[in-house]
Amino acid sequence: MLPQWVIEKKRDGLVLSEEEIRTFIDGYTRGDIPDYQMAAMAMAIFIRGMSPEEIAVLTDAMMRSGDLVDTSSIKIPKVDKHSTGGIGDKVSLVLAPLIACCDVAVPMISGRGLGITGGTLDKLESIPGYRTDLSEKEFVETVRTCGCSITGQTGRLAPADKKLYALRDVTGTVPSIPLITASIMSKKLAEGIDSLVLDVKSGKGAFMKTREQARALAESMVRVGTCMGKGMAALITNMEQPLGCTAGNALEVIESVQTLQAKGPADLTEITILFGIRMLRLAGKTGDDVEARALLTKHLHSGAAFEKFKQMVNLQGGDPRALDDFSRLPTAKLKEQIPSPREGFVEEVHAEQIGKACVILGAGRTKTDDKVDFAVGVSDLIKEGNKVESLITIHANDKSKLAEARAMIEKAFMIADWKPAQRPLVYETILPKG
Amino acid sequence: MLPQWVIEKKRDGLVLSEEEIRTFIDGYTRGDIPDYQMAAMAMAIFIRGMSPEEIAVLTDAMMRSGDLVDTSSIKIPKVDKHSTGGIGDKVSLVLAPLIACCDVAVPMISGRGLGITGGTLDKLESIPGYRTDLSEKEFVETVRTCGCSITGQTGRLAPADKKLYALRDVTGTVPSIPLITASIMSKKLAEGIDSLVLDVKSGKGAFMKTREQARALAESMVRVGTCMGKGMAALITNMEQPLGCTAGNALEVIESVQTLQAKGPADLTEITILFGIRMLRLAGKTGDDVEARALLTKHLHSGAAFEKFKQMVNLQGGDPRALDDFSRLPTAKLKEQIPSPREGFVEEVHAEQIGKACVILGAGRTKTDDKVDFAVGVSDLIKEGNKVESLITIHANDKSKLAEARAMIEKAFMIADWKPAQRPLVYETILPKG
Repeated sequence: MLPQWVIEKKRDGLVLSEEEIRTFIDGYTRGDIPDYQMAAMAMAIFIRGMSPEEIAVLTDAMMRSGDLVDTSSIKIPKVDKHSTGGIGDKVSLVLAPLIACCDVAVPMISGRGLGITGGTLDKLESIPGYRTDLSEKEFVETVRTCGCSITGQTGRLAPADKKLYALRDVTGTVPSIPLITASIMSKKLAEGIDSLVLDVKSGKGAFMKTREQARALAESMVRVGTCMGKGMAALITNMEQPLGCTAGNALEVIESVQTLQAKGPADLTEITILFGIRMLRLAGKTGDDVEARALLTKHLHSGAAFEKFKQMVNLQGGDPRALDDFSRLPTAKLKEQIPSPREGFVEEVHAEQIGKACVILGAGRTKTDDKVDFAVGVSDLIKEGNKVESLITIHANDKSKLAEARAMIEKAFMIADWKPAQRPLVYETILPKG
Repeated sequence: MLPQWVIEKKRDGLVLSEEEIRTFIDGYTRGDIPDYQMAAMAMAIFIRGMSPEEIAVLTDAMMRSGDLVDTSSIKIPKVDKHSTGGIGDKVSLVLAPLIACCDVAVPMISGRGLGITGGTLDKLESIPGYRTDLSEKEFVETVRTCGCSITGQTGRLAPADKKLYALRDVTGTVPSIPLITASIMSKKLAEGIDSLVLDVKSGKGAFMKTREQARALAESMVRVGTCMGKGMAALITNMEQPLGCTAGNALEVIESVQTLQAKGPADLTEITILFGIRMLRLAGKTGDDVEARALLTKHLHSGAAFEKFKQMVNLQGGDPRALDDFSRLPTAKLKEQIPSPREGFVEEVHAEQIGKACVILGAGRTKTDDKVDFAVGVSDLIKEGNKVESLITIHANDKSKLAEARAMIEKAFMIADWKPAQRPLVYETILPKG
């Protein structure tokens, strides 16, 4: 079987056999199939699509291209959450310790930011000393000790995905549902979890601009996870405006801490609780949403969730003092509050514009090897529906970047004379069929 | 403009601008755009197609990726023929010297065989000493001296095509009309010709299996050539059975010599004359098919065409004595005549099977760096419509390959009780529109 024969089959819109997919991915992982053959295959998959069965095999082949994390020593339910990425999305930082307070383990392998969406690892690395390069042994040990851990993908976890992800980025094959599904699910299922909740974001600040695209991706991922024996659920959530009132790495850590202390913004707190409820139900902790909500709220108000976060940070080498004294976090030299150009109510905050402004400030990457400035970003963002006074505060380390970001940010806010109708946080919930 | 943006545009079925195509091809030629980006682009072009305007720009960009042959010192009309390739297709060997006898120059840059179709260069290289690696200067000088030359593509002629051709072969992007058009026409138009006649073969032994595919390719190439100011015509010809009675390099040289001496098989002679007529008309030598045919027939019968061929062979370093004494050509050790399994008439000779048998014998290549055995192949092939006695003679240098080829060849012949209707040599003629 020559690789080009398999490419030709997909090119002509035919369904690939399990053997063809596995042989192709194995060959690519080993380097026997070069990038140019994988690029042609990725484009053929992009345009022709894949059946649910093909996507499941592709995911499994990519997952098995490397090591699987052995979590068998963790005897409590193991649940994770994955987000497709948005502006100001710091849910993982709050959710992982919160769920760990409920005797459910959260072994979370997370990613870095690319483009306008931030990355959980970058946020955590703004805490001095925090390590995101745990070995598998350290990772499992951290979960065993405190119930959760958030670290980065090791070289031996789904290496086929690591190669393919970089290739897709430069060959115009990123927004493909089969390829996204296999990329996300191959990594998540290699973590050794029992269940997974997906946050598929939809809107201006998300990868999936429309509800239809988001639903198709959510259904595809839930299908593959279910097919591989995992408990699955997906929420399609609103990413028209940023989540919470901050974007930028250290600034988001501060907001996460406030949320863990039950002092966070309403949308971030609510969405964290909604994901928490799903995770607790999948873990079999409760069959009742009201009971789950009460438990989660209790751990936020009691300080237990915050203590758990500090414990995790400490175990991963981070300085927990920075979580009590924010002056120990990276701080920007310049701070500018942007007033509203007129009176009225915030009708819209364009998340993508805020995300682009943060990239300009240096909080994000345009290339995978770009350095990130942990200190910069935005805070005190006024949310949709509120009466305007100040719009936002910009944190910068460079005057000209500040000016450039400011110009972009000013265009992100739409002010109306009347209080607009509120948009929902969660559009819909996707559960396994049948 | 990032290369992936251009890829994405074609991926989504949009029309690329002239600047986008030129920048992409220039980048690929220089090596700034790597193979994997070109592979993704080729697959997107394969599936989404290209408009006639895009194909013309792609052809021009690929042609200009290297040197153009300067034929301005040749003061007579310059015409060439190109075939998409078939089994036993040795028309170029007869046609080039025949046309040169009519005061029309034929500067022919030809290719090697790959897969089941033979290559003109391989055939000529079976003549001891024949050089297919002429410099541009030697090439033009040969044409000036004897009116024709058949040589190989130098590294500086359409290098973008050279790279892309090899890449397409391993990425499942070969049978694409835009890519085939640009590949063939970029090389042919770089030769510095005034007019071009295309032999687009259709049938079991051809690249284009159906008449519809062949017509679409012919129309695409005629359109691009016309658009670039060249006189153009294409014949769609029958490649169900092999052309002539031989396949294999030295064996085809022998048959070409016989045809140049007016002793060749009817189908090969007739098709050569039909292409000759088109070339003479495009060169403005005559407006009358009957007159052109008479002129061409005269040069075959007078020995002038054969003398011209010997002169060309001699100028390119080949031993002209091998054309009078075939024992000086490579000769196979084993020869086996295959009898017919029953009485009757030949209803069909499956050209692809014969081609595959020749590859097994060693006459063709499966990979570009395979060595070719010039001596092996088949001769005395019985043509469709004839009463059977012997089917064919196999020439081999290896007993087990002979047995393998024989098994394949025996399946290539279909014998009927009655004489079947004759199929046409030429299906249709494609001329520029309007």
